[in-house]
Amino acid sequence: MTREEARELFFSRWREMSLIDSTAAVLGWDEQVMMPPRGASWRASQFAMLAKLSHEILVSPSLGEALRTLATDGPDPVVSAQAREGLRRHERASRLSPSLVSEMAEVCSLAQPEWRKARHDSDHARFAPWLERIVRLKRMEADSVGWKDHPYDALIDEYEPGTTTGSIRSLFASLAPAVSAIVARRAAEQGAQEPAGHYPVEEQRKLGEMAARFVGFCFESGRLDVSTHPFCSGIAPGDCRLTTRYKPTGFVESFFGVLHEAGHGLYEQGIPAEWAGTPLGQAASLGIHESQSRLWENQVGRSAPFWAFWFPIAKSFFPGALKETNPADFLKTLRVAKPGFIRVEADETTYNLHIVLRFEMETALLSGDLSVSGLPDAWNRRFLELFGLAVPDDRRGYLQDVHWSGGGLGYFPTYTLGNLYASQFMAAARRELPSLEHDISRGDVSGLLDWLRKHVHSKGRSVRPEELCRLATGEAPTTAYLLAHLGSLAPTA
Amino acid sequence: MTREEARELFFSRWREMSLIDSTAAVLGWDEQVMMPPRGASWRASQFAMLAKLSHEILVSPSLGEALRTLATDGPDPVVSAQAREGLRRHERASRLSPSLVSEMAEVCSLAQPEWRKARHDSDHARFAPWLERIVRLKRMEADSVGWKDHPYDALIDEYEPGTTTGSIRSLFASLAPAVSAIVARRAAEQGAQEPAGHYPVEEQRKLGEMAARFVGFCFESGRLDVSTHPFCSGIAPGDCRLTTRYKPTGFVESFFGVLHEAGHGLYEQGIPAEWAGTPLGQAASLGIHESQSRLWENQVGRSAPFWAFWFPIAKSFFPGALKETNPADFLKTLRVAKPGFIRVEADETTYNLHIVLRFEMETALLSGDLSVSGLPDAWNRRFLELFGLAVPDDRRGYLQDVHWSGGGLGYFPTYTLGNLYASQFMAAARRELPSLEHDISRGDVSGLLDWLRKHVHSKGRSVRPEELCRLATGEAPTTAYLLAHLGSLAPTA
Repeated sequence: MTREEARELFFSRWREMSLIDSTAAVLGWDEQVMMPPRGASWRASQFAMLAKLSHEILVSPSLGEALRTLATDGPDPVVSAQAREGLRRHERASRLSPSLVSEMAEVCSLAQPEWRKARHDSDHARFAPWLERIVRLKRMEADSVGWKDHPYDALIDEYEPGTTTGSIRSLFASLAPAVSAIVARRAAEQGAQEPAGHYPVEEQRKLGEMAARFVGFCFESGRLDVSTHPFCSGIAPGDCRLTTRYKPTGFVESFFGVLHEAGHGLYEQGIPAEWAGTPLGQAASLGIHESQSRLWENQVGRSAPFWAFWFPIAKSFFPGALKETNPADFLKTLRVAKPGFIRVEADETTYNLHIVLRFEMETALLSGDLSVSGLPDAWNRRFLELFGLAVPDDRRGYLQDVHWSGGGLGYFPTYTLGNLYASQFMAAARRELPSLEHDISRGDVSGLLDWLRKHVHSKGRSVRPEELCRLATGEAPTTAYLLAHLGSLAPTA
Repeated sequence: MTREEARELFFSRWREMSLIDSTAAVLGWDEQVMMPPRGASWRASQFAMLAKLSHEILVSPSLGEALRTLATDGPDPVVSAQAREGLRRHERASRLSPSLVSEMAEVCSLAQPEWRKARHDSDHARFAPWLERIVRLKRMEADSVGWKDHPYDALIDEYEPGTTTGSIRSLFASLAPAVSAIVARRAAEQGAQEPAGHYPVEEQRKLGEMAARFVGFCFESGRLDVSTHPFCSGIAPGDCRLTTRYKPTGFVESFFGVLHEAGHGLYEQGIPAEWAGTPLGQAASLGIHESQSRLWENQVGRSAPFWAFWFPIAKSFFPGALKETNPADFLKTLRVAKPGFIRVEADETTYNLHIVLRFEMETALLSGDLSVSGLPDAWNRRFLELFGLAVPDDRRGYLQDVHWSGGGLGYFPTYTLGNLYASQFMAAARRELPSLEHDISRGDVSGLLDWLRKHVHSKGRSVRPEELCRLATGEAPTTAYLLAHLGSLAPTA
């Protein structure tokens, strides 16, 4: 195969695979946002068919040959970088036997309803055999992919290319006790709550759309809808969709849902369109993706300058509910650090402790240091250490999250890596843009968005996350900025 | 290939093709209803990719072999019927050369923007060369597919299996002068108009949803949304979607949009779910499909019994706008027959004249009896005969419709066949259900729906449209019932 033939084959096949994957993304968005309930069964068959078609392309030997031909250094370094990333995906997928892939799909589809019942009844015994099978299959996956220091390396690499269990462990080692200490120190402020009152949903929708526009999300290339769990789906260049959810008793949840998802959406809208349908035409990693959502949600959205601009606007939307509140008191309600059992309800501070816990349990299960039978005790013991709370039942313990039942082991750490990168990026942007906070307080975030476009979005997947962090901030990933941020949330700061 | 192997191959491949086609249907719905504008270019590539994948399955020689093995009479007559319909589609698609298919796709995608400009400027000279190429390609398509009496037979057969140019011509021969006479006779009533006033869109939406539920459309298996042009998309068993459009100056358009599309939707929801993903798991034809929408829209929706029940409801939704109106006067506004230039704005009576005209022009273009250069004159001359109106420009003449620019020659007649079948079905249902009109006036349409489920919906594609008509009504298709219906619309009737 000549280099030219390889190039032609690689880019045309990859584009075809991307078209299939993005078609599945439309169907996925539709399933969450639009599909009538009885469409579920046929939709599942559509997903299976698209997954099969996409997988056949990814593992095809001719694609592999083309990628190997191009991955060596050649006249066009971008093509070589494209091919190296393509080859990484091809090799990973090729190393998994079809029987492992199909057993995983089958076990996970059976395990999910079992998990649902087990969580409802707080019934460890019901879910345990399924989790054992899933852990065994994930370990087989790791062994098939290959690993050096820890089998978890093979899993995390899929979501956070180049990041290892060891590097996460050392970051989390300094993070966990420091966060626990911050939480303990801030116990006195835990009572601050969003003002009670009526927040009309239609007003929330308008305000949320304003906020998305405000941060720079383009509605010519996107939408904002409603779903049970907020998400962002970057379907295609020119088509990125956000969701949030509304309840009439408060606007904070829907508003921050929009800010968070719009952060993801800005990233998707900022990846170079000319890379669409190629390996580099996507986010650097889940952790970097999460950094963009967390940056707008927490670094910007929970800051005093932001609410200097937005509080009067919010008040004009909800004049009754916010009548008695001032910006400083309102801000306090956004910055509470309050230990709780449920990860998805956690504030930005205690959230990280949930992730540390998941990471410790996942790695121990995968290495065999922890058995599924020992999991509830191990979870509850460590939860008490980290949060100072005794877990009352497995429903509020390890059974709370759906992910493991679907085979999702290995990406929980990307949430806290996202927080860490968000803080580090924000600190770097502040250094380079001295008027940043002043600009935000006047309603101008364009300088920050430009900085992110330049240092993060425009890179696509052309650099690894740790390297991207280094290039953008001048430093390797560190917990220092996240801890400084979390420490500064107290009202006295 | 054994019969058993053939069966396995046929049903699995056909199901896969149906999954792909239904995926394209989701994307098509999404494009019309949801997609942000800048998603258009990538979406076009997704459609092309899905069409290619589907086509590859349909024309695959192994599928052809399996279909030929099964299409002969066998132990299971349903399987043989499935295979015969599958073979019909396979053979038709296989007879078109890949170069013809790709030239057609290319010419049509280039012709559409040219048509748009030509219509805007009423510029025949701009569109003429494109239409010439399209007619030439459609003639090549007809010749590839094969035909005996008229090349148009090969085109109409795709939409209305088993129906011929000759049979349509003889139906239309009696229809056209009779309809023209009805229109002329009713010139005096042309002034009746929907009462002016404000009709809040949200109230129209609620009323439309009520109407869809009223006729039996299931929202567990469907949705109702908004699009520029109303349509119904039967995506999958359990997933059928309607759209309509709203303007605050009247509710009739949105309401009848819903009734029309819900008629299509009831058909989709009534096709046996066990046939999903097989050749028989679809409508008998476009004409039969249209009969279901027209039946609910015109036969039911423009009847006195229907408004005996619905007028008080509509009045409670729009108390201001409908204050001065009574059911009889309101009904008159729904039954006007008023000649106009634009097909999509036509009433149910004059609509048929537009179709007769299109059919005459299409068949003459395809046979070569009419040249593209002679088209405007021929159109305008015949328009004057049929409508008694002189066409002022080509924009309001032959250039008004998008269809030809996209290669859509051959299915215009299905609209009037739908009207014809709708009248004939309704007459048969009335004979079998003596209390039908009384039931409708009390708000009960379940007897009619059951009749349609039994005689039309449950048949899927297992019988040809003309045979379906005969089985359901005891007669071959005839214009008698449609003419009786149109003649009865006058207030004196």
